[in-house]
Amino acid sequence: MSFNLRAWSAGRLDTVELALSRWVVAEAPAGLGDAMRYAVLDGGKRLRPLLVMAAGEAVGGNPEAVLRAACAVELIHAYSLVHDDMPCMDNDILRRGKPTVHVKFGQAQALLAGDALQALAFELLAPEDDSVPGAIQATLCRLLARAAGHEGMAGGQAIDLASIGRALDENELRHMHRLKTGALLQGSVVMGAACGAASGAARHGLSDYGAAVGLAFQVVDDILDVTADSATLGKTAGKDAAQDKPTYVSLMGLERSRAYAQELLAQARSALAASGLEETLALQALAGMVVNRDN
Amino acid sequence: MSFNLRAWSAGRLDTVELALSRWVVAEAPAGLGDAMRYAVLDGGKRLRPLLVMAAGEAVGGNPEAVLRAACAVELIHAYSLVHDDMPCMDNDILRRGKPTVHVKFGQAQALLAGDALQALAFELLAPEDDSVPGAIQATLCRLLARAAGHEGMAGGQAIDLASIGRALDENELRHMHRLKTGALLQGSVVMGAACGAASGAARHGLSDYGAAVGLAFQVVDDILDVTADSATLGKTAGKDAAQDKPTYVSLMGLERSRAYAQELLAQARSALAASGLEETLALQALAGMVVNRDN
Repeated sequence: MSFNLRAWSAGRLDTVELALSRWVVAEAPAGLGDAMRYAVLDGGKRLRPLLVMAAGEAVGGNPEAVLRAACAVELIHAYSLVHDDMPCMDNDILRRGKPTVHVKFGQAQALLAGDALQALAFELLAPEDDSVPGAIQATLCRLLARAAGHEGMAGGQAIDLASIGRALDENELRHMHRLKTGALLQGSVVMGAACGAASGAARHGLSDYGAAVGLAFQVVDDILDVTADSATLGKTAGKDAAQDKPTYVSLMGLERSRAYAQELLAQARSALAASGLEETLALQALAGMVVNRDN
Repeated sequence: MSFNLRAWSAGRLDTVELALSRWVVAEAPAGLGDAMRYAVLDGGKRLRPLLVMAAGEAVGGNPEAVLRAACAVELIHAYSLVHDDMPCMDNDILRRGKPTVHVKFGQAQALLAGDALQALAFELLAPEDDSVPGAIQATLCRLLARAAGHEGMAGGQAIDLASIGRALDENELRHMHRLKTGALLQGSVVMGAACGAASGAARHGLSDYGAAVGLAFQVVDDILDVTADSATLGKTAGKDAAQDKPTYVSLMGLERSRAYAQELLAQARSALAASGLEETLALQALAGMVVNRDN
């Protein structure tokens, strides 16, 4: 395969960045817009938007719906980082190499900025004009709400909170990560698929792909927390061990964790093969990037 | 008019309470469900759900959509109280006569519970079955997102934060309250209206009614903060003055504030008269209750 992920991503990242900058407005009152923009713009790998776009393109989805879904999942991701970094949660002062939102704008503004970003994510999915059919708008809202809420990201964070200093077995750890990071990553893929008229097999295959990539992402995150330094990560390294948090590395060791990540990559590829979709090169390359990244 | 608001409300409150108890599930992981239920159930006047239902019935709205919208606005209201009460915001320990969520469950769980309640509000608006047409689902998501986000409630809270200890004039104060509490109250009415096929005049009249009721609610809140005691309010009285927050009472005095509330009640009634709707007795009575309540 001579697929060039960097070239494929470049234009799409520009589109997403421009759309985010247009939709997350500085005019929101009393500094709230500044805090929201600080939390969202010029940062991050934009993995979730790229997953939405790759899946959306694979099913020939409505381009406006795909772009809105791509930005909406990123807003949810950004808000979760803002709240996660707050003193009552992870109490982190560094994110993407910059002071975290509450350090820069104060805790109260950070709390509000996160809340407003979550609302804005749903606002993006339901435009007033008829550029996106109402049925697709509604489906995207449902998928995002489930991925972000108590059955998804927020639920996973609650398990994470409750697990500090406690021994989790592999099944419990996997369940936590399926919710905490997996749900929104898988949701990104499934939302992209919902922007078009995919077959049952295609939806099923993409959903399985998203689940495997979502879990692989967390396994690799745990590996990098041990093997990379803060400068490379753009966030505090070694945090999990310092907080005595259960991770794949603490549970199965570094080598078995690496092997597990490769196994999940193989699962992701199989799921794409089973989907019957023709244009899956971007999805394949994104899965490879998730597993083989160094930050 | 011999309309009995108490009788009208009774069955509807039971329906809302039952639906909230069914939709806010205790099974959410690691205590998150308990915190969410504690924040939502057995408390509050349920003014917003009643406004949704009264408006929804006035336009002959889809009953399932009306019930879902009624519960969704209450979840947004509940989450905003949880986050508002946190130490980095109002730092309040008493709400509806009980310890606030962060006092009972810890700050991290309170933060997550608020986040999960916001997501759940949107999830309720977009059911997977076809009980509510996709176009109505999408419209409700859009209206709720706008009412809750940076152009609505969250934006108003940001202005509120920035205004502590600062002199606001009447226009600035009104702008803050239109966003902070007015947007979700007006949004409740407008969402109820969006559940049916109302005429332009009806939608316009209901929207104006919602704006007047929303503002009146805050004026009366400011009055009660001065005139009522904590036991009657179920929350800490005299808080605004203690925090040197601008209020209608501090700006225009008690008597002019009371006159203004009555003026807004008259505006709400005129808007209903202009709506051309026939069944507005419940809406009229709710506006009266907002202005003449003692807690």
